[in-house]
Amino acid sequence: MSRHTVEARKGAGYKLEAGQTFKVINTHGHQVVDFWAISTEDPTEFMSMVHTRSTLTKLVPQVGDILYSNVRAPIVRFVEDTSPGVHDTVVAPCDLPRYHLIGVEGFHDSCSNNFMTVMGQYTIGEYRQAPESFNLFMNIPWTEDGKLSFEPTVSKPGDYVVFEAIRPVLMVVSSCPQDILPINSGNPVEFDVEISG
Amino acid sequence: MSRHTVEARKGAGYKLEAGQTFKVINTHGHQVVDFWAISTEDPTEFMSMVHTRSTLTKLVPQVGDILYSNVRAPIVRFVEDTSPGVHDTVVAPCDLPRYHLIGVEGFHDSCSNNFMTVMGQYTIGEYRQAPESFNLFMNIPWTEDGKLSFEPTVSKPGDYVVFEAIRPVLMVVSSCPQDILPINSGNPVEFDVEISG
Repeated sequence: MSRHTVEARKGAGYKLEAGQTFKVINTHGHQVVDFWAISTEDPTEFMSMVHTRSTLTKLVPQVGDILYSNVRAPIVRFVEDTSPGVHDTVVAPCDLPRYHLIGVEGFHDSCSNNFMTVMGQYTIGEYRQAPESFNLFMNIPWTEDGKLSFEPTVSKPGDYVVFEAIRPVLMVVSSCPQDILPINSGNPVEFDVEISG
Repeated sequence: MSRHTVEARKGAGYKLEAGQTFKVINTHGHQVVDFWAISTEDPTEFMSMVHTRSTLTKLVPQVGDILYSNVRAPIVRFVEDTSPGVHDTVVAPCDLPRYHLIGVEGFHDSCSNNFMTVMGQYTIGEYRQAPESFNLFMNIPWTEDGKLSFEPTVSKPGDYVVFEAIRPVLMVVSSCPQDILPINSGNPVEFDVEISG
């Protein structure tokens, strides 16, 4: 087992073999973690939220569910969740245009930029931009008439989720640097991951 | 004004200049139409459901809303809707892997394949696969706890939606060939489009 801390506002990538598990720990409780899984055998194949929703007929995957790739193949299994299960698949990972739209001038860290930085480090594939992310601990409630809102997490310090790699994958995670909307309670922080032996 | 019929189970593309409008008519009432808009100035920029949901804070765009691209720029305006407003942004355009998952053997028409065929005809950009589509007239209700289901349309014959091009775009539409799930009432048919002068 190896344990790693992912710095506040930054991203990281970890290569896993099939059968290894990846635990994402919300160490301080209020942090959103954007999460992607990329096939290392075919880097154009990635865990896809829109295909996962279609196959599961759910807005949000739960423990026991398989997550599917952009060619609708099983890629990751959701095996454990000690949080209240409030995660998001319907909003995009933050990016510089998003920050500019909400008033930021100049540079701001973003989950999309963190994804691209990690992909550059591993050079296992070419992405023009980050695919849709599985936004762990992110609280985006929907109403009966389809309104969405950006709310603080409901997870507690130490809550974690665990995913099993069904195939060799690069797990990419980002400490969401959103400090304008309340989703990280205004204070993006570090979090930890653990990878099974 | 020009009017065109899109054949059952097939796709078509139409280049519009900024300010032109694109009417999609559910001629027979029960047909789902998968819809994309691609910038003709930069073919890597496309109308993106995940970015549109995030910006509108809505699961489904409505009349008066702007639809946003994958770089969060306005690309299309939703200007009229005579249907009950039941459309979908959360499930993926059908593709061959989808049909194989639900029991089809061999080839089956799909909205994703129709998109790729149209893009091949216009050769304005290179897509590995169809982006998320705006699924017009598609009835994918969600429950309070996030369950989705695939239901028949609730639109009437002749119901239509109108979009205005904010910039030069290729409008791509597909008559969804889904004949296994009930979304097209088991009978995919032709529909019509009208483009303003």
